[in-house]
Formats: sequence, C-alpha cells, structure tokens
Amino acid sequence: MTARILVMPGDGVGPEICREAVRVLDTLATDHGLDIMLEEALVGGAAIDATGDPLPESSLEAARAADAVLFGAIGGPAWDDQPRDKRPESGLLRLRAELDLFANLRPAILYPQLAHVSALKRDIVAGLDIMIVRELTGGIYFGKPSGMHKNANGKREAFNTMRYDEGEISRIGRAAFDIARARGGRLCSVDKANVLDVSQLWRDVMNELGREYEDIELTHMYVDNAAMQLVRAPKQFDTVVTSNLFGDVLSDAAAMLTGSIGMLPSASMDANGKGLYEPVHGSAPDIAGQDVANPLAVILSVAMMLRYTLKRPDLAKKVENAVGYALDRGLRTRDIMDDEKQIASTQEMGGAIVDMLR
Amino acid sequence: MTARILVMPGDGVGPEICREAVRVLDTLATDHGLDIMLEEALVGGAAIDATGDPLPESSLEAARAADAVLFGAIGGPAWDDQPRDKRPESGLLRLRAELDLFANLRPAILYPQLAHVSALKRDIVAGLDIMIVRELTGGIYFGKPSGMHKNANGKREAFNTMRYDEGEISRIGRAAFDIARARGGRLCSVDKANVLDVSQLWRDVMNELGREYEDIELTHMYVDNAAMQLVRAPKQFDTVVTSNLFGDVLSDAAAMLTGSIGMLPSASMDANGKGLYEPVHGSAPDIAGQDVANPLAVILSVAMMLRYTLKRPDLAKKVENAVGYALDRGLRTRDIMDDEKQIASTQEMGGAIVDMLR
Ligand SMILES: [Mg+2]
Ligand SMILES: [Mg+2]
Repeated sequence: MTARILVMPGDGVGPEICREAVRVLDTLATDHGLDIMLEEALVGGAAIDATGDPLPESSLEAARAADAVLFGAIGGPAWDDQPRDKRPESGLLRLRAELDLFANLRPAILYPQLAHVSALKRDIVAGLDIMIVRELTGGIYFGKPSGMHKNANGKREAFNTMRYDEGEISRIGRAAFDIARARGGRLCSVDKANVLDVSQLWRDVMNELGREYEDIELTHMYVDNAAMQLVRAPKQFDTVVTSNLFGDVLSDAAAMLTGSIGMLPSASMDANGKGLYEPVHGSAPDIAGQDVANPLAVILSVAMMLRYTLKRPDLAKKVENAVGYALDRGLRTRDIMDDEKQIASTQEMGGAIVDMLR
Repeated sequence: MTARILVMPGDGVGPEICREAVRVLDTLATDHGLDIMLEEALVGGAAIDATGDPLPESSLEAARAADAVLFGAIGGPAWDDQPRDKRPESGLLRLRAELDLFANLRPAILYPQLAHVSALKRDIVAGLDIMIVRELTGGIYFGKPSGMHKNANGKREAFNTMRYDEGEISRIGRAAFDIARARGGRLCSVDKANVLDVSQLWRDVMNELGREYEDIELTHMYVDNAAMQLVRAPKQFDTVVTSNLFGDVLSDAAAMLTGSIGMLPSASMDANGKGLYEPVHGSAPDIAGQDVANPLAVILSVAMMLRYTLKRPDLAKKVENAVGYALDRGLRTRDIMDDEKQIASTQEMGGAIVDMLR
C-alpha cells in the first residue's frame, strides 16, 4: 500500500534541509521501490504569515490523513512578539497533541568520525548509540491541578501535579520494550521511586510489563544517578524509558554528549506506528537560505521513519550507512567542520547521500 | 566566642576520614588561633548498633547545640534490610529536617591536577569551579497532596505535587545571592518557567530579589538547557540556584563532570549560618578500615565550614591551597591515582595537609 508522507518544512533552515530529505525519499522510491506519496503543508511562522494560524486546519487535516510527517523546524525572530498561542512553536505542540504522539524517541548517536566535536573524551563517547524514549503527553507538564494563588498565610504559592495512570505508563512502556527488542535488548527505566509515589507506580508497571518481555533485560535507575551515568559512561545504556520531565532533561543532556546537535534526528509516535519525524536542532534563522545548514539530522529522521513507520529497517540502514560514508569521505557541513576535511554545502551533503543511495 | 563543632563520623570510611579532618581542625586551633570546641556523636548504622536508632535523641540534641556539624558518611550492607525509618540514611534525612537545613551547597570543583580523571576533555573542565545551591526542604519531594489510588476508570493512578510559596523561594534565593556575591558575582536561576506555574513563581521571586542585589548579574535558564550547558561548557557558570528536584539532578551531573567524587564537599545550611558539612561520596564499606579512602572531600568540607559558618575565609583558603599543594607534590589516594604519581594512604594524605598548615 502506498504510504502517505506529509512534509512540513516550516521556517528558517527548515525548507532547505527538507528539500534534501525529499531528494533522499525520491531516490528510495525510484531506485529501491519504496512505495510512497509525498505531500506538503504549511506550519509555524510560514503558516502564520499565510493564514494567521501556526497550524491551519488544512495542515492538521493533511497530517491526520498521512502515515508519517516529516517536519523541518519552526520559529524565528519575526514571530517572537506574538501571543503564546500564535507563536510558531504552538503549532508543533498542537500537532503532537491532536495526533496523540505520546512516545518521543530521542537517539543520541555519535559517529566515530565526529568524536572530536564532543566535550567528552573520545574513548568515552565515540560510537555512542543510545535511545531515550520519553513520555510526551502526560506527567507534570500537563497534570492537574496546577496554578498560582495566595495561600492561607497570604503568600503567593504555585503548584503543579506530576500524575500518571497505569494506562499511560504501560503504553509508553510497551513502546520502549518493543524498541529495545529491535535494538540491543536492554531497557533502563529511569524514575525517582525512592521518593515519588508517581515513580513507584511507574516502576511497578514497568516490572509488570517486564514479565511479558522476558527476552529484554529490564533495569531501573534513579534520575539523579542517570544524569551522572550519562556523563561518566554513556555507552552503558542501550534503550532508556522515562517520564516527560525526566526525559526532557536527560534527552537533551544525552544529545549534547555527542556535541553535534546538527546530526540528531527524533520521532514522536502514536500507538499505531504513525510518527512525526524531525531534527533535534532548531530553525537557525541566522543561517537560513545560505545553503550551509547540516541536512543530516533531517535525513537521519527519514531513516527513523523508514524503521518505525514504514517498517523498512533495510532502507533505514542504507541511509544511515550513506551518512557514515559521507563522513568517511571527509565531507563536513560548517557545524561539524574539522581541519583537513572538505567543507560541504547543504545541497552538496544531500547530493552525496543521494549518490550513495543510487 | 568558642564555636562548637559536632563531629558525626558515621559508618564505613566515615570514621577514618573524619579523623583526618579533626587533625586539620586541631592544627588550625593550635597554629592559627581558631577558637573551636569539638564534640562527637553517633549517627547512622553505628548509632543503630549502639542504640537501635539512626539518630538517637542525644545526637540530635548535640547537633542542635552545635554551631556546625561535620558529618562523615553513613550506611552499609549490615543495615540494608531494616525498615525504611530504621535505615542509616533516615538519620541524615531527619537531622536535616530537624535543623531546618534548607540550603544545599554543592560545589563542583576540578583541581587542574586531576583533569585526567574527568570524562570531559581537559580544556573544557580543568579548573572548573561552580556552586550549585539546591533548595532542600520543599518542592515535589515533600509537596502535598501525594499518593496512589484507583481513579474513576478503575485504573491505578499516582501523583505528587511540586509546590513552593514565595517565602521558601526567597529564602533560598537570598542564600544564593549572598553566595554569588562572595564568589564571581553571577547567579543563574534554573527553572522550567515556560511550562510550570511553580517555576513561573520561582522566576518572579528571583527577579524581585534581583532588584535588591543590583551588584549580582542574575540570569535564568530552563532546566533542560542547563543540563545541556553543563555538558557543553560547564565553566560558563558561577553560582546556580534551583529547586529541590532540579538541583538533585543537576548537582549530581555537575559532580560527575569532575570525575572525582572523592574530592567533593557539600554543605546544608539553615537561615542563621549553621551548617552540616559532609563529603558527597558515600560510606564505601568495601574499603572501610583499609586506610585507602580519600580524606580530601571531608577536609574540603572543613574549608566550607570555615567559610560559611565560622566566617574565616582566610583559613578556608589556606586549607584549599594545602590540598592543591598536596596534589602538586604528586600525592594521590587510590581513587585519583595516576601514572608516575605517589600513592598515599588516608593518613598520609591527611598528614600532608596538616604539615602544610603548620
Ligand atoms: Mg528539552
Ligand atoms: Mg542526588
């Protein structure tokens, strides 16, 4: 069956990097029989300029109809003064909520060729390949009650509620166990069960699921220790699953371990394998339109789409290998440039990947 | 006035490292006119063995009467099977609560001589000197309501409340501004004000305080970005202030940046300058009694006591410098050993510090 892919380029460098990703998808269709149909829709600042809304109804409908969304990047100084619900970012938040994308997949991968850009010593980080699975639609960022008021002593007081029910925990747990099974077979669940009731339920449910996934090695770690271990010996991890807030912090820390945010893809998935795929980096308005942005994060997002929505791990591997070959050949966009390497433009890097996929 | 210092050696390596710290204090008394009186009290597993209680009433009374507490370390396999309130750790938690020690000071310092033990590249981390001030008695670890129940759909559900009032925020804020003033004059407040109401109040109160501390440069950072920046460029920070949970994670990550937990002191302070000073490392029962533990973390905890309770920054500096000289001379305990350096026992390292203070 033909898979429908919606491309939402967005703002800043979004359009120019998505153009390279589309060339990759086109090549996979023509040369490797990938059965896809591409459409495009407005989102973010570009959508605000055209329609007044960062997520116009037509874009939302197209996203609903699609099997997967390839998302560029959004935002920029032109829209910073808008009220919160008219900012580009609110378009992405609404899209994730409307599509019920509760599983956020954040790989932290460091190609050995790029170990020099990391803040960590080469032997500690070269070849890093971990996957952080973050719950994205529950927890303290959405928990009720929340608010600010004056308390009985007349003092301002504010509060938020970290809340999960077993259904929310088990669906992200299942997603993570399945991912661990397709990877190294090890899953580390991160919580703060020594202090928090909500973490105790999290740990209980993970242990219950663990009995259904007997082939997966399940371990538990407290969030403060996980932050330490990520710095000390990040390669000890295979797949990590954690709640919304903890995942926000740990996935960003893990991304920065690699030193090369311009290389990192991500996915946000629903319960049926539909996903929104996007680079971790932002819209970088300062370099937009200059053909210098690194297209590898969005191209690696295509690889994730191939693996997790289109169920073509063989093609995912081809794309990932092509990226490795381009780095081996010495091609570097400006953000990952190194002495004695060859500077490549956005289009040259995309073209090199396409050539290797033919 | 004579300052009363209560030494609570605790378990594992606690007694042997505290013995070296006491030699340092004695030397400061005899050779530098420090006016102190030392007492000793049981805590942790040692107290359980003697009295059945990890914090006997006599120890709590002695701690209340003291101006400062020097704490070793607690815990070990001998007491792991006790119920939660009869574990060694609960003695420390009760002590902090009873003394209202709301400000946790966690320096992350890397002596340049030890840069090789860090997971980070030398130029990124050598000479690191940041101070994380963590709120220790409020926030989500203590917020009510909390619990686990079945919800309206018959599902297990659990929740915790992250709650602060303006009084709690301003007292930790003042502590942090004062510390920043005695350091580099820069304070970074870490929150998640783009999402959490409780963080918005935190930020509002910090900004209000900032108007009273016009000489301090106040900045704000989101917690996920702070985790990234700690990995990318930790030396950008001077003093950091944050809430209980965020501080738990960030202070441990920052400690691990140094790679040498055996070197790190900490303090927990009340509103009047009284403090409990202790190494970050644990009781290490596996090496207890072997004269190989690193006494420098507890000796540097003495330096913090000199600075923050005894108001003798001159003597604090002397102790810190003595540690630097010992490292310059090539002395290393086992945990920080390096090729071509000289292995030192606990007592030899303590003796070297004492000699340099005479
Ligand atoms: Mg984040
Ligand atoms: Mg901790």
